[in-house]
Amino acid sequence: MAILTMIEGGVCAASGFYADGIAIGLKKEGAKDLAFIYSDSLCVNASVFTTNKMTAAPIRHFREQGNFEGNFVLINAKNANAMTGKAGIEDINEVLHTLQNQFPQIQNPVMSSTGVIGVRLPKEKIVAGAMNFDLTHRDGVAASEAIMTTDTFSKRIAYEVALEDGTSFRIGAMAKGAGMINPAMATMLCFITTDATVDKVTMQTLLDECVHTTFNAASVDGDTSTNDTVLVMANGKSGVFEAKAFKEALEKIMLFLAKEMVRDGEGATKLVTYKVTTALNNMEAEVIAKALSNSLLVKTALYGEDPNWGRIASTVGASGAMCDEATLSIWFDEVCVYRQGELLFNDELEPFAAAVMQKSAFMIHCDIGQGLGEFIAYGCDLGHEYVKINADYRT
Amino acid sequence: MAILTMIEGGVCAASGFYADGIAIGLKKEGAKDLAFIYSDSLCVNASVFTTNKMTAAPIRHFREQGNFEGNFVLINAKNANAMTGKAGIEDINEVLHTLQNQFPQIQNPVMSSTGVIGVRLPKEKIVAGAMNFDLTHRDGVAASEAIMTTDTFSKRIAYEVALEDGTSFRIGAMAKGAGMINPAMATMLCFITTDATVDKVTMQTLLDECVHTTFNAASVDGDTSTNDTVLVMANGKSGVFEAKAFKEALEKIMLFLAKEMVRDGEGATKLVTYKVTTALNNMEAEVIAKALSNSLLVKTALYGEDPNWGRIASTVGASGAMCDEATLSIWFDEVCVYRQGELLFNDELEPFAAAVMQKSAFMIHCDIGQGLGEFIAYGCDLGHEYVKINADYRT
Repeated sequence: MAILTMIEGGVCAASGFYADGIAIGLKKEGAKDLAFIYSDSLCVNASVFTTNKMTAAPIRHFREQGNFEGNFVLINAKNANAMTGKAGIEDINEVLHTLQNQFPQIQNPVMSSTGVIGVRLPKEKIVAGAMNFDLTHRDGVAASEAIMTTDTFSKRIAYEVALEDGTSFRIGAMAKGAGMINPAMATMLCFITTDATVDKVTMQTLLDECVHTTFNAASVDGDTSTNDTVLVMANGKSGVFEAKAFKEALEKIMLFLAKEMVRDGEGATKLVTYKVTTALNNMEAEVIAKALSNSLLVKTALYGEDPNWGRIASTVGASGAMCDEATLSIWFDEVCVYRQGELLFNDELEPFAAAVMQKSAFMIHCDIGQGLGEFIAYGCDLGHEYVKINADYRT
Repeated sequence: MAILTMIEGGVCAASGFYADGIAIGLKKEGAKDLAFIYSDSLCVNASVFTTNKMTAAPIRHFREQGNFEGNFVLINAKNANAMTGKAGIEDINEVLHTLQNQFPQIQNPVMSSTGVIGVRLPKEKIVAGAMNFDLTHRDGVAASEAIMTTDTFSKRIAYEVALEDGTSFRIGAMAKGAGMINPAMATMLCFITTDATVDKVTMQTLLDECVHTTFNAASVDGDTSTNDTVLVMANGKSGVFEAKAFKEALEKIMLFLAKEMVRDGEGATKLVTYKVTTALNNMEAEVIAKALSNSLLVKTALYGEDPNWGRIASTVGASGAMCDEATLSIWFDEVCVYRQGELLFNDELEPFAAAVMQKSAFMIHCDIGQGLGEFIAYGCDLGHEYVKINADYRT
């Protein structure tokens, strides 16, 4: 059994990785808005990108690199470089070429962006700012702050993974959330660095497996951005790898960051875990869990701390998945409010259910009674702050 | 060419139809909460019900009647009679049997309900109230008021349809809306009455065709209630029918009521028409139009009167339909903000786009550039009032 120990450092926790975040005037009031991650040796990478067909320029640029090894990611906030066509990619090339002239140690750099859609990249500001990078800095905190947009706190985590034979590797990450970004969308960016000695194919396979139960199970508003990115960089410096331990650490990191993102969803005051059991199959369980986490009526009931199980039942019924009121049961944490046709909810039960709703994190469990399918999704409430942030964003 | 003339009377406009709405104490402050529609001769009916699998008791009761002719509908607000199992149907039977004992002229009555989910029907109150019905009343206004829940205005319409040969028939309707209802869902009820001499199969066919482009094209919050119902009753009293004219009138009525419902969506301040053209096919056009009308980010941008075309583009991209930023164009009414890769939006254009957004009704048009598919959907904005209504509903 591998032993996982949480450590400081974020994306700089693993050997050979450097990062920093600086302020170049894209955000107001001198906030950090430009970050880099640099490895002093080449990295294999694995990646998952948005399914949005209006894919942003940095993602198209990344894909054009093909099956490459590189050692540098440049990340800017406030501009998504999306809907910018070929010019968007030319802007990236221009920025990155200038950067490579200044820092010859950078190889095959890529870029990641989050912010307003449909506006050309402010490349002069970015280039001028990037000239001030110090690639020997290891400031995972500053980097995680620079990629924030409507996030109210920065998000990072790292583990040291000790294997049974006494060897170890490290893996660290930072993410920005799913509140929606600029007048754009719920852009979700996550960068993971590791000194584990893992090959590209294995890492991509493990990443794909972990995404399904973590980032893809988390929803703030059901929108999918043009820029969503999860990028893992492995420089192999530890000389150590064990697939099972690596996957455990990767999944833990991604689940932590996914939940942090939901908890920090725009205007969110609650993190709700939707557990669906005994659906017809796993796919139907996922459909139900995501229908619940995305329902406006459920989300507003959560905000109102209203133990409104009727909205839960109705959303299950509207999901399209096989279900029946005679086999459905619903719990708020341990409080069963509806059991297979029995109307348990009454004035006596209400205070117990209401007490659960007042917690900042709790579980809504729906047992469907149709099969063996299971899925867990993560969502938040929707309150006035969400409306305020999103109605007033540009103005 | 048939000539359609708008007339008063709502569901009582057609010959032989009677209706009323009374207050029986289900709503607060003496508001009307129980309605009936009665025809003095038997009616064929056509119906469309919710796709929600947690179908409310009144809909299951209706379906159990099979292929029947009847002359009476009882409608209550404040209780959906949903998630109430077999008891829910027994309650309906008890109410309707008592009613038939009191009014022997009632044949094969059915019921329709809207309100809180998961609470047994207050049948004593309903029975006691219904005893006071006067089946000779023709008060389409009172009936349309009694079925309101969070609606801020009652919704009804009627036409006289004059055919070329000098004969005519009438068709009238009332509806309640899609703000969500009680702690339940966006229950949508619509009752249409006509003295046209139409057979059941023809009427059902025409209804199915019209639903697709009217009620099914309208969205307030993307939720589907346990109780959604469109019921058409035809008593044949006019002796007149022409399919084309009937369909024209039916579609006009349903489109009017669908748009009225969206306009009166909970907290809505704007009615937005989403026109999608040149999608790959009609189905993909519908997918895109509905993705737009249901997107939280688009809806909050509308509320903020923010001509945020990036959210439109991103939502098109996230819809799953075939699209490309190089072939997409976007208009706010007549103002083109993005044309096939051209970033038209700038400080000069912004006031024109913003002026459109400030209107209480306008069109967002997306030309996808992939085929010949078209669809028009109707949606509204989402503001603080929606959150307030839905967060605070039960408490």
